[in-house]
Amino acid sequence: MTTRLHNFSAGPGVLPLSVLEEVKAELPVFSDAGASVMEISHRSAQYTRVAESAVERFRRLLGLTDDWHVLFLQGGASMQFYQVPLNFLPHGGSAAYVNTGVWATKAIEQASTLGTVHVVASSKDTGFDRIPDVASWESTTDHAYTHITTNNTIYGTQFQDDPTADNPLVADVSSDFVSRPMNLNGYSLLYAGAQKNLGPAGVTVVFVRDAFLKTRNAGLPKILDYATHTATLYNTPPVFAVYVVEKVLAWIESEGGLDAMAVRNREKAGLIYDRIDASDFYRGASHRDSRSLMNITFRLPTEELETRFIAEAKSEGLVSLKGHRSVGGIRASVYNACPMDSARALARFMAEFERTNG
Amino acid sequence: MTTRLHNFSAGPGVLPLSVLEEVKAELPVFSDAGASVMEISHRSAQYTRVAESAVERFRRLLGLTDDWHVLFLQGGASMQFYQVPLNFLPHGGSAAYVNTGVWATKAIEQASTLGTVHVVASSKDTGFDRIPDVASWESTTDHAYTHITTNNTIYGTQFQDDPTADNPLVADVSSDFVSRPMNLNGYSLLYAGAQKNLGPAGVTVVFVRDAFLKTRNAGLPKILDYATHTATLYNTPPVFAVYVVEKVLAWIESEGGLDAMAVRNREKAGLIYDRIDASDFYRGASHRDSRSLMNITFRLPTEELETRFIAEAKSEGLVSLKGHRSVGGIRASVYNACPMDSARALARFMAEFERTNG
Repeated sequence: MTTRLHNFSAGPGVLPLSVLEEVKAELPVFSDAGASVMEISHRSAQYTRVAESAVERFRRLLGLTDDWHVLFLQGGASMQFYQVPLNFLPHGGSAAYVNTGVWATKAIEQASTLGTVHVVASSKDTGFDRIPDVASWESTTDHAYTHITTNNTIYGTQFQDDPTADNPLVADVSSDFVSRPMNLNGYSLLYAGAQKNLGPAGVTVVFVRDAFLKTRNAGLPKILDYATHTATLYNTPPVFAVYVVEKVLAWIESEGGLDAMAVRNREKAGLIYDRIDASDFYRGASHRDSRSLMNITFRLPTEELETRFIAEAKSEGLVSLKGHRSVGGIRASVYNACPMDSARALARFMAEFERTNG
Repeated sequence: MTTRLHNFSAGPGVLPLSVLEEVKAELPVFSDAGASVMEISHRSAQYTRVAESAVERFRRLLGLTDDWHVLFLQGGASMQFYQVPLNFLPHGGSAAYVNTGVWATKAIEQASTLGTVHVVASSKDTGFDRIPDVASWESTTDHAYTHITTNNTIYGTQFQDDPTADNPLVADVSSDFVSRPMNLNGYSLLYAGAQKNLGPAGVTVVFVRDAFLKTRNAGLPKILDYATHTATLYNTPPVFAVYVVEKVLAWIESEGGLDAMAVRNREKAGLIYDRIDASDFYRGASHRDSRSLMNITFRLPTEELETRFIAEAKSEGLVSLKGHRSVGGIRASVYNACPMDSARALARFMAEFERTNG
């Protein structure tokens, strides 16, 4: 079967078809390399151009000032859960964390092995169904940094705006990065596993401000010291993954940049949330003022109906709609590259399923 | 230009053309996934089949007994330089290291930040032009493990046989893994960045014996504890890289396995070493009894001739022949997937270049 289905995978997630077609066209020979992009040195002119272009595109899309370093690392957000406090949680000091779900909890657990973590806000008591209102956070003043998770794939919640804190903000932006413009004023470090909006699994992009970098702990292991990776290539980067990221960024630029992504993402998610809100059959799983435009979570009246919903959707070519195993229900992930047609098809299917099962 | 050139890159290195053609054919839709392999969950049936097949192929090719765990990690050998001693260098204990070059030195440096390292053998004094004879090593008995680098890309040296030590052997096999059969008796842990014989950069394969794993230190960071990765998928693996590795292993099996690779690699390298040995114009850079079948290093009478050699070779479609920047000279990397034709073309070019410049 060579048909592409409507893909709502939470990650690794859908990529732009045009990017995949380009990758295909550049096999088995990339550019003037005489080999595929997987077979050339990470110090070759060809790869250097790719990596530099990816950095430049990030700088343009996000309006990054020169004080931001852009790094391509490995190990995903899970490695960052450890690497961030290893670098920035001072010996004898503390860091502030906002707990908005499973991934934030993992970040907290890893930081706690290295020092004192103060959870300044949490929505654990309500099943992580919302983002704690910034006005309700405890003071972050006395902590080295404040860590947030901007979008929570499992619960379908998302910070609606970029918060500010009294200290440097560190954000796991894995699942909503480049989906909308960001106000970077409060942030000092951002990290994202690529496999949602950026590209294939296997590369982690890290953005860190130089002034913040200078505050890192001494005596770090070479490979886990962010500063090791700011100047030259310390070790072999995940060449192919960076190459795809560069193409995805080119696609975002050609589509109109982050403003255009935001408009489209609001429209796509709106089609599905409208269906939820117009119905007593579907029930949104996340608090209305914390809704994610990336991962839309909802419930049906019974688990049996949810199972049938997933199966019938699949038979109509709408796949990967099952909620995370820890929470159940339905989850539709509609990242940047999810076509409007897929969102429309899901909204139509939801109406039809309610008509025949409601 | 869509011609594939004769690619002697030291890594990322050449991959089998048939593998690249398969990857191409499976874009933008892989198997029955309705999406490319980059766009599906790492917990999907499709990816699970790929990863399990890769593990099974490793087990068949290497004759791995059940006590070996096979892990797909990230960060390359450089991460292993730190992760190995973090797990296995006991607090207050020591480890033995054999120093055979830049990469071994980096491994030693990282281990030294965590405990006592005893260099039991080194070829540093002769510019790493050989593998220290095992009979000359100091005793390894009192150390937790002995670390070796089986092949040294920069100098073109390689252990000719699998050594034994009085304690568990840990080996960086990045640059000659699956190029020949191995006797795994003495080994307890092997690691390899994929980008030489296995696949694209971005996945590190780690093989660790269960009994050795049980000796690891307590209180490890979750992501860097090998045991975190033995049971379930802890975090998102580099899906695409593992997918290509699986195909490369299938190719090795279809070509006759590790015995066939060894025969072919001896023949390929032999074509070039014969040319070196038949000449006073070319001078092998590595000691004859330590020669690598993966990376063939040699010098010409002058640096000017070396520069001309590289330029003229390139104009005839033989690329990436420049020696590592730290040593200069010529380096021809002839990994598993380097076609016999490429080795023949290089041997012919060497003869012709000597005839016109000798």
